[in-house]
Amino acid sequence: MPKKKYSVGVDLGGTSIKVGLVDSKGKIVKKVSLDSCVSNGPEAVIEQIVKGIKSVTNKKNDKILGIGIGAPGAVKLKKGTVENPPNFPNWGKVHLGKAIKEKFDCDVYVENDANAAAIGELIYGAGKKLENFIMITLGTGVGGGIIINKKIYRGETGGAGEIGHVTIDYEGPQCKCGSFGCIESYLGNNYLIDRVKKQLQDRKDSLLIKLSNNDLNLLTPQLIHQAAEDGDDFARSIIVDCGLKLGYVLASIVNVLDISTIIIGGGVAGFGQILFDTVTYSIKERVIKPSKERIVVQPAKLKNNAGIKGASALVFYKS
Amino acid sequence: MPKKKYSVGVDLGGTSIKVGLVDSKGKIVKKVSLDSCVSNGPEAVIEQIVKGIKSVTNKKNDKILGIGIGAPGAVKLKKGTVENPPNFPNWGKVHLGKAIKEKFDCDVYVENDANAAAIGELIYGAGKKLENFIMITLGTGVGGGIIINKKIYRGETGGAGEIGHVTIDYEGPQCKCGSFGCIESYLGNNYLIDRVKKQLQDRKDSLLIKLSNNDLNLLTPQLIHQAAEDGDDFARSIIVDCGLKLGYVLASIVNVLDISTIIIGGGVAGFGQILFDTVTYSIKERVIKPSKERIVVQPAKLKNNAGIKGASALVFYKS
Repeated sequence: MPKKKYSVGVDLGGTSIKVGLVDSKGKIVKKVSLDSCVSNGPEAVIEQIVKGIKSVTNKKNDKILGIGIGAPGAVKLKKGTVENPPNFPNWGKVHLGKAIKEKFDCDVYVENDANAAAIGELIYGAGKKLENFIMITLGTGVGGGIIINKKIYRGETGGAGEIGHVTIDYEGPQCKCGSFGCIESYLGNNYLIDRVKKQLQDRKDSLLIKLSNNDLNLLTPQLIHQAAEDGDDFARSIIVDCGLKLGYVLASIVNVLDISTIIIGGGVAGFGQILFDTVTYSIKERVIKPSKERIVVQPAKLKNNAGIKGASALVFYKS
Repeated sequence: MPKKKYSVGVDLGGTSIKVGLVDSKGKIVKKVSLDSCVSNGPEAVIEQIVKGIKSVTNKKNDKILGIGIGAPGAVKLKKGTVENPPNFPNWGKVHLGKAIKEKFDCDVYVENDANAAAIGELIYGAGKKLENFIMITLGTGVGGGIIINKKIYRGETGGAGEIGHVTIDYEGPQCKCGSFGCIESYLGNNYLIDRVKKQLQDRKDSLLIKLSNNDLNLLTPQLIHQAAEDGDDFARSIIVDCGLKLGYVLASIVNVLDISTIIIGGGVAGFGQILFDTVTYSIKERVIKPSKERIVVQPAKLKNNAGIKGASALVFYKS
């Protein structure tokens, strides 16, 4: 038996596929990024995944414990199928796990990417010592994962944890899911940036104008954070608003789940201490009394390449 | 061994204590209602509970499997303690389970009343054949219970399932829990009746005025239902509004839990088919796509004396 065992993590996205060889501590030993080739259909995507795995496992096949894949869309865990991921045309239902297993002599685990992120924190990250936590990932979408007794909670069909589609205002802005006032419709990257752009029309004095070189198409959550750090009141107010709203939704979820630790990851989590302080304040203001003192909000530990790491964690979680 | 085994259910409320001798099918064989005597402190309340149990178990002691108590407030299951139930002055933390066990030679189970209601449906009622369901009870408060794999989900401290305090509008009316726009602040009996009373000032033509004999203090959810059945548009609009709002909150919860069956009990559930049709419509409109077709909303089966039955079910659930 080789001494050191690795896992392969595959972060399947609509634009790129990121593949990494990861050790049992969550350290990426080797990684590669390939075009997803989604417009060429599922077979092309699978070919790219295989290519990526081969390139990181080259000459280390005997040390690979398994392959974990974090995929968007509805994932059936046991069957390893991925169904209708957004931004993957002509996909339908694909037996991704089976297709990859045929090419490599090891176990393959396919999981929803939001659940993989939570499992990543559980195995390598901020959730290592926790029995229960709620993970929320703030990216293009707002994803969620729920850990109960050190296990991911999947629900009846594997679709649990869709925190992004909990409403905080039933008459709020329409979300692309069809509902209204979902937290994603406030904090999802595109929704957020669009809102800030509009508001900036009346805030020509904001540092954000300068930081984005007068081209608001270059606006990112990172720039908003930078402007806030540099003392821009408007940028700061955006972050505070995000934190308050995130607190409203998390208070509701804590009331339902009675889980007191929340881990926040993803781009908007880069809003830093202002965000974390505001979220904590907001949850405590809103949650029912017995939970107030127990609330702990912390940043995700897996930051760069969290997708690869989360996917690779599926192998160690299983074994 | 006696052939037939009974359980005792104790429904502890702020005004009255209802105690019943219940068979394994959930049929109440004998029951009694006593004053809670809350103003005389915990000892007096415990004395009343003991008196109630004695009066229904008289001469049947050998056939009693156990005693179940459904209590308001924070209940610690293992210790059998009940902490600060609303409307129980000078209560603090009381070892209710222990106090009752000392008086009777059988097991005693103490559970939060909303969880007991869900367990009641699981053991005797609409949830008998279900693996998972969300129970919501519409009374003075809006209570919730979550059944996962035929077990009540309690969370870290036994406080899970507080569906009543999920917000549907972060700028909505303030709830007595301190938060804003909780579903309880719309559908809790007193909130609802107060709102209807106000609206009736501009709806003097409504049948509700007549049905309540011109005394709006006599207004109840039952009267609203009766008026709607008799064709009163205003009363009907109230029920539809309740159904829509209930749907908003349940869609959020289904998105988090991925549990597709919802059982609704309590007084407002007496709003009947109009309510159930609207709730179902509203959830399906708002829930994420993969869950839409799976949603089933049904009325609780335990209606009269649901409190006694739910409490008694704790004994059969455990054994």
